Amino acid sequence: MKKIGVLTGGGDCPGLNPAIKAVVNEAHQLEYSVLGVKKGWKGLIENKIEKNYIQCLTPNDVRTLDRLGGTILGTSRTNPFKSESTEKKLIRNIKRLGLDAIVAIGGEDTLGVAARLYKKYNFPIVGIPKTIDRDLSETDYTLGFDSAVKKIMEEIECIRTTAESHERIFVVETMGRHAGHLALVGGLVGGADMILIPEHDFNIEKVNSLLKRDKRTGKRYSIVVVSEGAKPKNAHEVLLDKDVDEFGHVRLGGVGDYLAKEIEKGTGLETRCVVLSHLQRGGAPSEKDRAMGLYFGAAAVEAIYYQKYGRMVSVRDSKIALVDLEDAVKKLQLVDVERDYDTNNYNVKKRPRIGRYVYL
Amino acid sequence: MKKIGVLTGGGDCPGLNPAIKAVVNEAHQLEYSVLGVKKGWKGLIENKIEKNYIQCLTPNDVRTLDRLGGTILGTSRTNPFKSESTEKKLIRNIKRLGLDAIVAIGGEDTLGVAARLYKKYNFPIVGIPKTIDRDLSETDYTLGFDSAVKKIMEEIECIRTTAESHERIFVVETMGRHAGHLALVGGLVGGADMILIPEHDFNIEKVNSLLKRDKRTGKRYSIVVVSEGAKPKNAHEVLLDKDVDEFGHVRLGGVGDYLAKEIEKGTGLETRCVVLSHLQRGGAPSEKDRAMGLYFGAAAVEAIYYQKYGRMVSVRDSKIALVDLEDAVKKLQLVDVERDYDTNNYNVKKRPRIGRYVYL
Amino acid sequence: MKKIGVLTGGGDCPGLNPAIKAVVNEAHQLEYSVLGVKKGWKGLIENKIEKNYIQCLTPNDVRTLDRLGGTILGTSRTNPFKSESTEKKLIRNIKRLGLDAIVAIGGEDTLGVAARLYKKYNFPIVGIPKTIDRDLSETDYTLGFDSAVKKIMEEIECIRTTAESHERIFVVETMGRHAGHLALVGGLVGGADMILIPEHDFNIEKVNSLLKRDKRTGKRYSIVVVSEGAKPKNAHEVLLDKDVDEFGHVRLGGVGDYLAKEIEKGTGLETRCVVLSHLQRGGAPSEKDRAMGLYFGAAAVEAIYYQKYGRMVSVRDSKIALVDLEDAVKKLQLVDVERDYDTNNYNVKKRPRIGRYVYL
Amino acid sequence: MKKIGVLTGGGDCPGLNPAIKAVVNEAHQLEYSVLGVKKGWKGLIENKIEKNYIQCLTPNDVRTLDRLGGTILGTSRTNPFKSESTEKKLIRNIKRLGLDAIVAIGGEDTLGVAARLYKKYNFPIVGIPKTIDRDLSETDYTLGFDSAVKKIMEEIECIRTTAESHERIFVVETMGRHAGHLALVGGLVGGADMILIPEHDFNIEKVNSLLKRDKRTGKRYSIVVVSEGAKPKNAHEVLLDKDVDEFGHVRLGGVGDYLAKEIEKGTGLETRCVVLSHLQRGGAPSEKDRAMGLYFGAAAVEAIYYQKYGRMVSVRDSKIALVDLEDAVKKLQLVDVERDYDTNNYNVKKRPRIGRYVYL
Repeated sequence: MKKIGVLTGGGDCPGLNPAIKAVVNEAHQLEYSVLGVKKGWKGLIENKIEKNYIQCLTPNDVRTLDRLGGTILGTSRTNPFKSESTEKKLIRNIKRLGLDAIVAIGGEDTLGVAARLYKKYNFPIVGIPKTIDRDLSETDYTLGFDSAVKKIMEEIECIRTTAESHERIFVVETMGRHAGHLALVGGLVGGADMILIPEHDFNIEKVNSLLKRDKRTGKRYSIVVVSEGAKPKNAHEVLLDKDVDEFGHVRLGGVGDYLAKEIEKGTGLETRCVVLSHLQRGGAPSEKDRAMGLYFGAAAVEAIYYQKYGRMVSVRDSKIALVDLEDAVKKLQLVDVERDYDTNNYNVKKRPRIGRYVYL
Repeated sequence: MKKIGVLTGGGDCPGLNPAIKAVVNEAHQLEYSVLGVKKGWKGLIENKIEKNYIQCLTPNDVRTLDRLGGTILGTSRTNPFKSESTEKKLIRNIKRLGLDAIVAIGGEDTLGVAARLYKKYNFPIVGIPKTIDRDLSETDYTLGFDSAVKKIMEEIECIRTTAESHERIFVVETMGRHAGHLALVGGLVGGADMILIPEHDFNIEKVNSLLKRDKRTGKRYSIVVVSEGAKPKNAHEVLLDKDVDEFGHVRLGGVGDYLAKEIEKGTGLETRCVVLSHLQRGGAPSEKDRAMGLYFGAAAVEAIYYQKYGRMVSVRDSKIALVDLEDAVKKLQLVDVERDYDTNNYNVKKRPRIGRYVYL
Repeated sequence: MKKIGVLTGGGDCPGLNPAIKAVVNEAHQLEYSVLGVKKGWKGLIENKIEKNYIQCLTPNDVRTLDRLGGTILGTSRTNPFKSESTEKKLIRNIKRLGLDAIVAIGGEDTLGVAARLYKKYNFPIVGIPKTIDRDLSETDYTLGFDSAVKKIMEEIECIRTTAESHERIFVVETMGRHAGHLALVGGLVGGADMILIPEHDFNIEKVNSLLKRDKRTGKRYSIVVVSEGAKPKNAHEVLLDKDVDEFGHVRLGGVGDYLAKEIEKGTGLETRCVVLSHLQRGGAPSEKDRAMGLYFGAAAVEAIYYQKYGRMVSVRDSKIALVDLEDAVKKLQLVDVERDYDTNNYNVKKRPRIGRYVYL
Repeated sequence: MKKIGVLTGGGDCPGLNPAIKAVVNEAHQLEYSVLGVKKGWKGLIENKIEKNYIQCLTPNDVRTLDRLGGTILGTSRTNPFKSESTEKKLIRNIKRLGLDAIVAIGGEDTLGVAARLYKKYNFPIVGIPKTIDRDLSETDYTLGFDSAVKKIMEEIECIRTTAESHERIFVVETMGRHAGHLALVGGLVGGADMILIPEHDFNIEKVNSLLKRDKRTGKRYSIVVVSEGAKPKNAHEVLLDKDVDEFGHVRLGGVGDYLAKEIEKGTGLETRCVVLSHLQRGGAPSEKDRAMGLYFGAAAVEAIYYQKYGRMVSVRDSKIALVDLEDAVKKLQLVDVERDYDTNNYNVKKRPRIGRYVYL
């Protein structure tokens, strides 16, 4: 009888709990036992009985889990490879606990640790992709994305009534430091008039001129969706040095606030900004994140059954697949600007549609 | 400049309006004009100015459309090929209106008319698939399915608190006369304990024995999801003739009520039934149905642009494709029981997962 | 240090859990201990250690309770006064458990038992009113009402898109066997075109004539909300005997189905029926039911503190009050037809408004 | 036949449209005609035909209005009494339009203009109270409050899953520059661990010490709700001058950000801030705001019928009443700290409950 550890690392999101549930249930079918490790890699490094970092998980413990956002296991951003001592502790604790395999649910960082653990120690490990940014390579879906899209759509719908009543422009800032998937799809389904993403620097004059054109053609209000990582062209020139960080991102109130001020100044139209921040990663999982969490969790255990280690479960062309963990975290999957982004109108590319990749 | 007609036929669902919006916007880009035809094929047969069945549609008319369920064009189940006289009227009106092409949004029946119109008259027509049952062939998605799944998930969640408080079994009857996709995916994401579908006749003794087993293993309540078209094995033997219709379906209160009574009798456990009926096809479109409506609508106009007629827009392996209208309506796409349904536990098949087709 | 028992009886609804939470927290402040009794009066009658019917409740146990519908204590419709033996068991168990007081949360039946227990045995008991029907006397609010109203409003909104697309009449059947409050307020906020309540028998000819008038004046669809307890005038004459029960209620498919058929027949307009049934009592509590549950729960413990027994907590003129338990259950509080119901239009009475009692 | 003008002024909120609908419907019953004035007082000052500021409203125009947030009439913060010239224009336009009475829907500012118009010119005017802050005098309810409370409750619920997963403290900043009603009731129903309001300056050491106590007693995370207008004791001492505005409010990122930083510093616990801002005033009206909008709108027209001018419709002790417009705007209705706020625990006052005023 195998003993499997399961942990969640990095930022939390809806879909983690369904994945945990499926890991436990599938393991139960195969008569494996499951230990839930709390707080991601931290729980494995610091595990001591008195800290209560390890919890046995049975089907009864996880029955209602698919309806809950976040992760019952808790999470952290701890990297065990940061020092030799934590690395040693990690290896020692894995042995002590007698884990035959680990299912690591996380994004770039958490799965990067998993990849290294597999490569360096050949430890039996399988990853499950999770990030509301959907920017991991080698998979068409990462847990949390659809729930975040849904939340953005709902919040835009909420903003719309006040935007229209006051005839204002609203800037809605979403998450997405490097990748614009969330802003792009959230903006598409939310009916945004303009979407700005990190993959293509925007020209503030053009932003304003497009918004003025919209006003002229009869739009009473406009909604601009902007990724937190989007930035103006030549950020270092148009902004004071102190307002730009090392990556060229807008500091202070963030790019949303910056945009709102520039738009109001440049168009003369009343403009407000709403930063969705943590609201995007909270709440209950959407139907998609429940289904994908359940599929991914079960597939991860199946990968263990077939001894396919060092892999990440993934979805390609609507089918569950296994890919190399290392490939998945090697580089981020950004928006294909050429294919999907209309740089003339700062919005989703409209054509051609046939043969087009479908996001959700 | 081309003149395109757009119509929606059959049962309404969320996603039709986003598709109409995209047809209008995409046509506008190509400088085509769009006539909205009201009440499906009926509008084309009976069109008279005084009946107001034809409406010119511009981008301004459809701006907020993606947020509305149903169809602003209205719908009907009228089949113009039912009589020679209606067939003639249809052809005459198409000519009179000067339509260069038609986008028909609908399910089996509506698209069946489209296929025939193309075959018999070589009329330039493109279809968009719509049915909450998701049982059209040649496509991985049909508009309305995800919104219906979401509604089923939410209603099960609602039922759950009362089921648990009273320690009852609840039977939740979904739509799906021939195909069990809706019950299967709705039940999966809703966490149903049992799912009964039309593709596999159930044995009432087995249903009861599985539910009694659940009770013994500690479940305080159970949720049974059943398609309206599911039926007991040998329906004609276990039921009185007057309670079964010509297809072997349970008459009267429907299969949900039948099941609730049989379960209560067979298990001794208090059992209630809720029939979701029309609630499943109402409300605002989900993020998926907005995105797919927009994709499908734009792709249909693009098909007209490329003069690909007699086709239906479709999604295969996460990409937008064009397929033959005739193939799409030739036969229903049912649940692949072998692959996806666990006939031992009357539930979603759990394994194997890798390589498995992902529904949502 | 006092020991308080708390129980919930009758049909469950949202708001019970917040009340339980407040009872526990308030008791904790006063250094009372709280025993949760499972399954209403049944738990007190049948309590044996092995049945696990009694559970100690602390603030930590109830922290997240206000967000959950239903009742964590479970419920039943058991009446201990039905036989001498159960009555004896009840009294014996109360003594055995050493309960100094009981908080009973329930409707007519549960509180009726409480009133009798107080009257016959002078047992220290306080009631909290709960019924989605809002038909208890001596209080302006009963737990569950607002959540049910909200659900009805949302379901009507869902129905509306399909009603409009098909230009149909929809009959929406709500709960309310004797009182029409739920249909009246749910219909008001849902924008129903007609509302039929048990307090005023409807004339089916008039129903049809009003609906035809609406159609003539341009309404594309109509929504009729009907209480399950509403009935036609002279039910025994217009219906066959076998279709009417002892109270004159429509049997079989219920009054909703009956109405839909009669309307379709009488107006020639396509008509469908949706029965909301258990969906109305499920789901998470609304803001109102959370607030009122918290207020009522705390007030009940305060009543115990001041030794005000045989009372029910209540709200009158926006203030928390204590009333006699016996008065509260003596007779139902029905809709004041004269004041609130427009018998000419079968809808909420429109005028006069000033001085008018506000429901929600 | 009277001609009534209706306008909405100040910040928009859910509930305005139901009120407009009821004004139109009630007026229709009395055979009055209704002119909708766009953009509040601005519409009356600047009215010219080409600006399209005046719109005739009939029952057909408003049928679906109760389901929409915001105001179809648009709004502004224009004060006609700011200059003699605008005052003259206002009076001239009222005459030109032939208005016999005006229904003004708004908060302190909009109704302040109404009060002055009545006092100075004896113009027949009736007010309807609206503000999500619920801080107008002489009424127990103002439109928009319940919808905002609901939104706060839902957003806290959303935040909770991520707070728990990361074991963080979350500061949720609500609206409320002068009055804490929104934070207090939103925090109550959202289950906040601490609520800070403008009516009672907080001591940051005490805030931190309470949060550390919660942590010790086992709370994995805490939610702090803070009104935007809450401020630390001796703000001018603890903050740099440049960080405090003329009213002693925290500048820059606002009080939420300030608090999050101080809490993280003072407790060592990871702390994040979410500012709900405009999200609170958007979206569809709650059941309460629909009902109250309908009641208030109808009552305002009734007041005109009875020639009760210079009044505001209001709700007192669950009944619709008329109060003096001037009294209503004379001073703000703040939280009664003595009665409702627990200054020891920075939360809703727990006792005594009996006789307590019920907010929602």
